[in-house]
Amino acid sequence: MAEPLDFQSIILKLQEFWAAHGCLIWQPYYAQVGAGTMNPATFLRVLGPEPWNVGYVEPSVRPDDGRYGENPNRFQQHTQFQVILKPDPGDPVELYIQSLEALGIDPRQHDIRLVEDNWEQPTISAWGLGWEVWLDGQEITQFTYFQQVGGQVLDPVAVEITYGLERILIALRDAPSIWNEPWNAAVKYGEVRQREEFEHSKYYFEVGSVERLKQMYDLFEAESLACLEQGLLVPAYDYVLKCSHTFNVLDTRGAIGVTERQAYLGRIRGVARQVAESYLAQRKELEYPLLKHVIEKSSASFPKPEAIVQIKGKQTFLLEIGVEELPSHDLESALDQLREQVPVLLDALHLAHADIQVLGTPRRLAVLVADLADRQVDVEEEVKGPPLERAYDADGKLTQAALGFARSRGVKPEDLQTRKMAGGQYLVALVRQTGRPVVDVLMESLPGLLAGIKFEKSMRWLPKPTGDSGDTAVTFSRPLRWLVALLGEVVIPFGYAGLLAGRNSHGLRPYNSPNIEIKSAGEYTQAMRRNGILLDPAERRQEIESQARKLAKSAGGALLLPPELLVEVANLVERPLPFLGRFEPDYLQLPKEVLISVMKKHQRYFPVVKDGKLLPCFVVVRNGDEQGLELVRSGNEHVVRARFADAQYFVNKDLQHSLDEYRSQLGALTFHKSLGSMLDKSERILKLVEVLSARLGLESDQAIYARRAAYLCKADLATRMVVEMTSLQGIMGGEYARRGGEPDAVVQAIAEQYLPVPGSMAGVTVALADRLDSLTGLFAAGLTPSATRDPFGLRRAALGVVQPLVEHHLSLDLKGSLGEAARLQPVPFSEQALGQVLEFIIGRMRVMLLEQGFRYDVVDAVLAEQGHDPDQARAAVEALTHWVARPDWHDILPGYARCVRITRDQQQTYELKTNAIKEPAEKDLYSALLQAESKQHLTGSVDDLLEAFLPMLPAVNRFFEQVMVMVEEPGVRENRLALLQRVSGLASGVADLSRLEGF
Amino acid sequence: MAEPLDFQSIILKLQEFWAAHGCLIWQPYYAQVGAGTMNPATFLRVLGPEPWNVGYVEPSVRPDDGRYGENPNRFQQHTQFQVILKPDPGDPVELYIQSLEALGIDPRQHDIRLVEDNWEQPTISAWGLGWEVWLDGQEITQFTYFQQVGGQVLDPVAVEITYGLERILIALRDAPSIWNEPWNAAVKYGEVRQREEFEHSKYYFEVGSVERLKQMYDLFEAESLACLEQGLLVPAYDYVLKCSHTFNVLDTRGAIGVTERQAYLGRIRGVARQVAESYLAQRKELEYPLLKHVIEKSSASFPKPEAIVQIKGKQTFLLEIGVEELPSHDLESALDQLREQVPVLLDALHLAHADIQVLGTPRRLAVLVADLADRQVDVEEEVKGPPLERAYDADGKLTQAALGFARSRGVKPEDLQTRKMAGGQYLVALVRQTGRPVVDVLMESLPGLLAGIKFEKSMRWLPKPTGDSGDTAVTFSRPLRWLVALLGEVVIPFGYAGLLAGRNSHGLRPYNSPNIEIKSAGEYTQAMRRNGILLDPAERRQEIESQARKLAKSAGGALLLPPELLVEVANLVERPLPFLGRFEPDYLQLPKEVLISVMKKHQRYFPVVKDGKLLPCFVVVRNGDEQGLELVRSGNEHVVRARFADAQYFVNKDLQHSLDEYRSQLGALTFHKSLGSMLDKSERILKLVEVLSARLGLESDQAIYARRAAYLCKADLATRMVVEMTSLQGIMGGEYARRGGEPDAVVQAIAEQYLPVPGSMAGVTVALADRLDSLTGLFAAGLTPSATRDPFGLRRAALGVVQPLVEHHLSLDLKGSLGEAARLQPVPFSEQALGQVLEFIIGRMRVMLLEQGFRYDVVDAVLAEQGHDPDQARAAVEALTHWVARPDWHDILPGYARCVRITRDQQQTYELKTNAIKEPAEKDLYSALLQAESKQHLTGSVDDLLEAFLPMLPAVNRFFEQVMVMVEEPGVRENRLALLQRVSGLASGVADLSRLEGF
Repeated sequence: MAEPLDFQSIILKLQEFWAAHGCLIWQPYYAQVGAGTMNPATFLRVLGPEPWNVGYVEPSVRPDDGRYGENPNRFQQHTQFQVILKPDPGDPVELYIQSLEALGIDPRQHDIRLVEDNWEQPTISAWGLGWEVWLDGQEITQFTYFQQVGGQVLDPVAVEITYGLERILIALRDAPSIWNEPWNAAVKYGEVRQREEFEHSKYYFEVGSVERLKQMYDLFEAESLACLEQGLLVPAYDYVLKCSHTFNVLDTRGAIGVTERQAYLGRIRGVARQVAESYLAQRKELEYPLLKHVIEKSSASFPKPEAIVQIKGKQTFLLEIGVEELPSHDLESALDQLREQVPVLLDALHLAHADIQVLGTPRRLAVLVADLADRQVDVEEEVKGPPLERAYDADGKLTQAALGFARSRGVKPEDLQTRKMAGGQYLVALVRQTGRPVVDVLMESLPGLLAGIKFEKSMRWLPKPTGDSGDTAVTFSRPLRWLVALLGEVVIPFGYAGLLAGRNSHGLRPYNSPNIEIKSAGEYTQAMRRNGILLDPAERRQEIESQARKLAKSAGGALLLPPELLVEVANLVERPLPFLGRFEPDYLQLPKEVLISVMKKHQRYFPVVKDGKLLPCFVVVRNGDEQGLELVRSGNEHVVRARFADAQYFVNKDLQHSLDEYRSQLGALTFHKSLGSMLDKSERILKLVEVLSARLGLESDQAIYARRAAYLCKADLATRMVVEMTSLQGIMGGEYARRGGEPDAVVQAIAEQYLPVPGSMAGVTVALADRLDSLTGLFAAGLTPSATRDPFGLRRAALGVVQPLVEHHLSLDLKGSLGEAARLQPVPFSEQALGQVLEFIIGRMRVMLLEQGFRYDVVDAVLAEQGHDPDQARAAVEALTHWVARPDWHDILPGYARCVRITRDQQQTYELKTNAIKEPAEKDLYSALLQAESKQHLTGSVDDLLEAFLPMLPAVNRFFEQVMVMVEEPGVRENRLALLQRVSGLASGVADLSRLEGF
Repeated sequence: MAEPLDFQSIILKLQEFWAAHGCLIWQPYYAQVGAGTMNPATFLRVLGPEPWNVGYVEPSVRPDDGRYGENPNRFQQHTQFQVILKPDPGDPVELYIQSLEALGIDPRQHDIRLVEDNWEQPTISAWGLGWEVWLDGQEITQFTYFQQVGGQVLDPVAVEITYGLERILIALRDAPSIWNEPWNAAVKYGEVRQREEFEHSKYYFEVGSVERLKQMYDLFEAESLACLEQGLLVPAYDYVLKCSHTFNVLDTRGAIGVTERQAYLGRIRGVARQVAESYLAQRKELEYPLLKHVIEKSSASFPKPEAIVQIKGKQTFLLEIGVEELPSHDLESALDQLREQVPVLLDALHLAHADIQVLGTPRRLAVLVADLADRQVDVEEEVKGPPLERAYDADGKLTQAALGFARSRGVKPEDLQTRKMAGGQYLVALVRQTGRPVVDVLMESLPGLLAGIKFEKSMRWLPKPTGDSGDTAVTFSRPLRWLVALLGEVVIPFGYAGLLAGRNSHGLRPYNSPNIEIKSAGEYTQAMRRNGILLDPAERRQEIESQARKLAKSAGGALLLPPELLVEVANLVERPLPFLGRFEPDYLQLPKEVLISVMKKHQRYFPVVKDGKLLPCFVVVRNGDEQGLELVRSGNEHVVRARFADAQYFVNKDLQHSLDEYRSQLGALTFHKSLGSMLDKSERILKLVEVLSARLGLESDQAIYARRAAYLCKADLATRMVVEMTSLQGIMGGEYARRGGEPDAVVQAIAEQYLPVPGSMAGVTVALADRLDSLTGLFAAGLTPSATRDPFGLRRAALGVVQPLVEHHLSLDLKGSLGEAARLQPVPFSEQALGQVLEFIIGRMRVMLLEQGFRYDVVDAVLAEQGHDPDQARAAVEALTHWVARPDWHDILPGYARCVRITRDQQQTYELKTNAIKEPAEKDLYSALLQAESKQHLTGSVDDLLEAFLPMLPAVNRFFEQVMVMVEEPGVRENRLALLQRVSGLASGVADLSRLEGF
C-alpha cells in the first residue's frame, strides 16, 4: 500500500478530481466564515436557475470549537473542501465515493455510512436534507441537498458536499491526533497551526472586548444595509459575514444570553434574506447569463424500455424503490405506509393476490405480492338514472331523458332496470367493466403509489417541471435513484421521478453499489441475500441483538440495549456486522451520562455495563463484511476516544474553578433582556426557594440544602462542558458540586433540577422555583407560547410544576406561589397576567390527566374547583373517577344535580331562616344537611364530600317529591332556595359536578 | 501548440510545480489583504532563522484599483500566486522561469525581462530589492529578495515570487481583456467576477461610510493592541490587516489627506512592528522548531576546483562576475568602480599590464586585462630603523636595538645603511621583496576587489556567517551567481560569496541561461558575441539608437530619445532588438504628457513624434532575437493599450463633473490636521493671490486670471486621474480647465503651478501663493524639515519661491509677503517663526547661487543685506561678482574696509558735525561723501554703490594717511568716526562687504 497522502496532497487531489468533473475551482473567502457554505460561491450561486459546479477549500473558523490546541482533533479553525453541484447530476453519492477512492480510501476496507443529517443554518435562513458521511465512525463529510438558502426556495436543488480535511487526514493515517501528521513532506500540521490555535482560542474565550465587538457588529450591520440600499449585494453580504463572525466571537466570550441570541440571529438572518432576494432579482435582470451552459439532457440518454409484454396466470410481483440512504424513521414510516397502501391499492384495482410482504433497508423499499392476478376482476356496477316518474311518459314509453341515460352509459334501453332506493324508485343501468390486464393497470397506478408516500420532512432533488403542466416537483425523503418492477419475469416499465422501472437493482455501497440484474420477481429475496443484503428490518435487528449480546458477554458485561437505538442501528445498515471497540479505562472517570450520551447519541454505539457501571468498551455495527475490520475498529475507537478527550478537556478546564466562581460569571449571560442575566435569575430562584421551603414544609436541614442548591444551581451554565453539550446542564453542575465537596443532598438537588420530577425535596423545591420564575417572567415579558411556537419551553415548564407536586404528593397553592414569583420579577405584573399563568399551568395539567386516561368531564369538574393545587386535584380526580364508576352514581348525581340546577341561576345567596322551615321534607333535608356539614372534611376531598352527601340522598329526593320550591310567596321560596344553595355549596372547593356528563 | 491554460489550470499548475519543489501549499487568508505578502504565511514566517518554503493563491484586494469592471485588466481584486523560498535556494530565478515553462510560456518565444524594482511596503515596515518580471512588456510577477519585514532584518533573506495570475492569463491567451477568458472550460472569468467588480468599486468609491469606517479602524486598532498585550500575535495581526484594509477603503473614498495619511500609516506600522518583534521573541522561546528541517549543504556540493597551475609569460586576464539582473544605474556604477579600482589594484599589487577593458551587461560585469605579467615586479624598500645616536654605542658598534632591527627585517647587520631624513640621521634596512606569481596574488586579492564594489542600495541574499568570525554578510546590488576568472587558459579559483571562480559562464535568459565554457580569457568577447551578447554598453546604445531611429522614420516620424532612457534601455538587455509597436490613434486625444509618461516612465518605450505631436506608435527594445517577435509585439501593444485605456477611463470619469464641483470636494481632503482641508488651503491661496497680484504689480486682466486660476488650482486633486498619477497634478487641472472652457491664461496658470518656474504671471502668482502658504503653515505647525527628512518638500517649496522671482525678474519683499501668508493661517504665528521661514528660504537661495557658480563670499555679502528680495539679490550678486573680478578691486575693497573696520566695534552711531571738520583730508572725504550720496541709487544696486564709492577712494586713502582718527579728544574722535560711519553706511541695504574675502 502506498504511503497515505499528506494534508496538502489531499487538497490537490480533490481539486484535481473535481476540476476533472467539470467544477470551477474557486478560492477560500477573504472573510472569517464558519463554513464553505457562507462563501458567496455557495450562498449566492446556489440561488436561481443557473447551473453552478464549483469546488474550493475553505478554512472555517468556529470560535467556540477552540481548544487552545490541546485537543487532538477539535480546533477553532478547520479546513473544509466544499463542492456544489447544481443541478443534481443524478449520481452525486457515487461521484463522492469515487473522490474518496482518489484519496486512497478503498470502500471495501472501511465502513462508509450515510447517517441522516437534517442540515439547517438559521443565520442564513437555509436548510437541506442529507447525511453526515461517516468513515469508520468518524464524520468526514456533510452531504446535503439544499432546499432553501437565504429564505429562497432552490430550484433546481444544489448538492453540497463538504469534506472535513483534518478528519480525512486523521482517518487516512489512522492517527491519534492531527498535530503530528504531515502537511507536506517536510512540515507537520501542528508545526504550522498549533500555536495559533492557542492564540485564537485565548482571544475568543478570554480576551476579545465584548463592548468593542458589539460596536463592530452594529457598524457592520449598518454598512451592510447601506450597501443593500444601493444594490451592492456582494459588499452587503461581506458585511453580513462580518456580523456573523463577530456574533460568534461574542457568543464564545459568553456574552450573549438565550433571548439576546435570538435577536442577533434574527438581525443577521434578515439582512441575509434581503441579499438573497436581491440577488435573485439581479440575476433575473441579467437574464441568467450562465443558463447558456446548461446541456440539455436528450431523451436519448433515457434507457430503452423493455417491450411491454402481457402475461398469463398469477405471478409474483416485485416493486423495488432504490433510494439514497433513508433516515431510520423515514424508512419505518415508508414501510408502514406501503403495508397500508398496497393492499388498499390492489383492492381498488380489483387485482386479486395472495400474501403481501413489505421489506426495506436504508437503500431500498421492496414490495412482494404473491400470486397477483393477470388481470382485474370484471365488475358490474349499478348506475343510478332518472326517477321513475320522469323515466316514462304518459304512454309508458321511455322518455328522452331515460333514453339519453341509457346511451350515455352504453346500455341498451331494454336492459335498463328499476330499483327502489331512498327517496323513491329509479331507473338503473347495469354497467359491466371488464378487467384490464395487470401490466397496463400497474403501469398507470404505480406512480401514484410512489407519489402517495409522504414524510415528515421531504425534499426535492429534481428541477421543477417546466411549462404549464402544473405538476409540482417530485419529493421524497431522499432522492430516488432506480426502480425495479417485475411481474414474474416481465418488466413493468412505468416512469416516475425521471426514472424508468426495469430489472436492475444495486448492491452494497462498500462494494460500489454493483448492478444486480433481477431475473424474476420470485428470486429477488435470494438475489439480495446472495449480495449480502438482509431485506427484513426484523431480521437485521435480531442478527444485531444476538451478536451484540455475545460480544458484550465476551467482554465480561452485558449490553445496554435501548430498543429505539436498536431500531435505528438496524435501519442504518443493509448488512450488519457488530464488533467490539474499546477505549481507555481512564475515561471511565468522566460522568457516566457523558460517556453514554457520546456513545449512544453521537455514535450509535451500544454501551456495555457490568453491575450498573460502564465497561471500557462498546459495540459498533458496521455495514459490510469482515474485510478491513481492524481498520474500521481502530477508526471507531479513535472517534470515541477523541470525543471523550474533548469531554475530558472541558471537565479539566472546568475543574480549574469552583462552582461559586462560575456562578459569578452568570452576570454576563443574559437570560432575557427585560428579565436580566442568569445571575439575576439565580437570585430570584434563591429567594423563591426560601418561600417555597416554608410552603412545602421542608424540614430545616432540607431547607438549608435547598438554599445552597438554589444558590449554585445555574452555575454550570458558565462551564465549558455545559456550553458544549447543553443537555448535560444540571448533571455537570451536580458532578462539579460533588467534586467541590458539597453535601450529597445539594449535589443531588443540583443534578436533578432539570428532571421532570426530581427525587429529593431540595431538588423539587429548586426545580419549582426555577420553573415558576420562568413562567411568570416570560409571561410578563409577553413571551406567551402560541399554538405552534413555544421557543422557551413554557409548556414543559408548566408540566414541570405539576408533575413533581403530584408525584411527591405535595400540596401547594400555585396562586400564592406564582404571586410570590411575580413579585420578584423586574417587570410589572398584573392580577390578570397571574391568572393567565395559572390558567396555562392548569391547561397543561388537564392534558396530563387526560393522557393518563381520566375522563375529561371528571378532570374538568375537579380542575374548575381546585386546579391551583395539583396534587390535591389529582387525588380528587382519582376519587371522583371511582365515584362516577359506582352503580349508584346514576342516583347520586341526579339528586345533587336537582339541588344545583334549580339554584344556579339565582343572582343572590339567600340566608336560611331555620324557623321558616315548615314542611317535614324540608326539615328532613335540613337535618341531613347539618349532619353532612358536621362531618370532618379534608380540603378538596371528593370522598369526604360524597360520603357526606350520600346519606342525604333520600332526603333530597323526598324533598323534591313533596316540596314545591318556586312558590309564589317570596319568603317561602327564598328560604327553600337558601336550603338548596347550602346543599349545592357542599361541593365548593372540591369539584364543579355540573361539568360531569349526565348532570 | 496546445490550447493555452485556463485560469484555474494556471493555479493548479503552479500549486503542483511548487509542491513538487518542496513548497508547503497554503491557502488565501481570511482577511481582505492587498497582497499575498500580508498573509501571515509570509509576514510572520519570513522572520527569524527557520526555513520556510510556501506557495499559495491570494486574491488581493486593492480598493483604489477598482474600475467598476470597465477596464480590461485593472480591478479592485486580482489574484496573486505567492511563493516564499527561505533561505534563497541559489537558483530562484531559474526555478521561476521553469515555473513559467510549466504554464506553457516558452522563453524563446517571448521577451522575459527583469526590471529593477525596489519594493517597499511602509505599512508593514518592509523592504526588499528585486524586479518586476515583464512578459512582453507586461508585468506578470514581482520578484523580491526581502531584506526587512515588520522592521526586522531578515536573516536569512527570503525570496518572494508574486505572480499576477490575471495578467498571465491575458498574456498566455494574447487576449485584449480578461473578461472573456476562460476560468475553466465552461465559465468565463467575467461571468464570475465582473458584476462584483462593479459593486465593490461603487462601494469603495461612493458608498462606504467614512464615519463608520473610521470608527471601525479605531476599534480594530484597540483590539489589536489588547491582543498584543496578551501575547496573542496572530489575532493581533489579524486586526492589523483589518486596520490596513479599512485605511485603504477610507483612502479610496478620498477621505484622507496627505498628512493624515502619514498618521494612519504610522499607526498601522507601529503595531505591525510590535507583532513582528514579538513573533521573533516567541519563535526564539520555542527554540525555532522548524530549524530541524534545515538540510546542511555539505561542502561536497561545492564543485571541485581546477588544480592551481602557475603560468609563465604575459597573459590576458578575464574576470567575469555573473549576477542576477542589475539595475541600470547599479550597472553603470559598478563599471565605473571597476574602471577606477582595477588599475589601482594592479598597481598596488605590482603587476605589470597593458590595456584594461571594463564591460558589462545586466547579468555580468567583465574585466579584461591585456598582457598581465606572470608575477609581481620585485621591489626594494627602505625601512627606517633607530636614529644613528641610538644605533651605535660608544665603541661605534651596533647597539642591541640596531641588531634587533636588522634581525627583524631579515637583513644582515653589515647591510644596514644610513640615511639623512627630516629630524636627523637614521639606520635603514633595504628590504627586497621578490614578486610572487600572479595566480597566488590574484587569488588573494580578487575577493577584496569584489567586496569593494558598493551600491547606493545593496542587498544580502546569503545567511550571515555563523560563529564568531565577525564577518558581515556579503552584499551586492543583486545576488552574485557565478564567477569566471581566467589567466589565459588557466582558472584562478578564488572563492567569494559562496561561489568558486571557474571557467563557466552563462548565456541569455531567453535561451535558459545556457552554460558557456570559456576556454581562455582571450576568446571571451568572441564567445559572448557568438552567444548573442553585446558586452559593451556603448555598443548596445549605438545599436539601439540607429535601429530605433530607422523604425521611427519608417513610421513617418522621428524618435523621442531622452539620453537617460537610452542608457537605461541599453542596460536592460544583453542582446537588444528594437521593434515598432502601435496603438489606436484614438488615444492621442489623451493629454500628451499622460501618453509620454506612460510610454517612457512605465514602459521604457521610445515615443515617436512628428511636428511636435505624437504618432500612434513607439519603439520597444527586446532582449533577444526575432523568434516569436509577433507575440512579443502584440503583448507590448496590449500593455500600452491597457494603460492608455486606464488613463482614458479616469479622464472620462473625471469629465463627468466640472472643476468647480471637484473643488467643493476638497473639503474632504485633509491638508494637515491643524491647517485644515485642501479647500481651506485653496481659500488661503486665493486671498494671498490678491495680495501678491498687487505687490507684483499684475495688470488688471492678469490679476483676474490669477484669481480664477487660484480658485480652481487644487480642484484636480479630487479627480481620479490625479489620485491615480499624482505626477499629473496641475497638468490634468489645466486639461480639465481647458475642456471646461476656461480662458487660456487660466488654463496655463493651473497647468504650470507645479513647475519650478511657471511661464505666465498668473501662474507665477498662484505658485508663489501656494508655496508661501505651505511654508508658513507647515513651519507654524512645527513641521520644519531636518537635515535628513523633508517629507513635505519644503526645500523644494522654498526654492520654488526664489526661482520664479529671479527668472521673471520680479522684485518682492518676502518678509512682507510671508507676513501676509502667516496672517491667513489658522494657527498662531510669531515674529521669530517668520524669521525662521525667511532664513530657510534664503538658505535655499544661497545653495542655488552657489550651484550657479558664484563665490560664496559674494553670495553671503549680498544675502546678508538683501536676501528678502531674491531677484534684486541675484542681480546684486552678479554685479558684485563683476566688481570683485576687477583688477582695481584690490584697491577698492581695502579702502572701503578701512572705513568699516575702524568703526564696526563702535556701540553707537555718532552725529557728524560739519563745523567740526577741520583737517583738509577730512574735508575732502566729506565732500566726496556728499557727492557719492547725492548720486541716484537703485535699491540694492551694487553698481550704483561702487560707482559712487570709486571716486571717493583717493579721498579715503588720503584721509587715513593724514588723519589720526582715534585721538584722545573725544569730540574730534567721535566726529571723525561719524564721518567714517557715513561712508560705511553707503553699502547698507546692498551688501555686507565685510563678508568678502580680502576684507
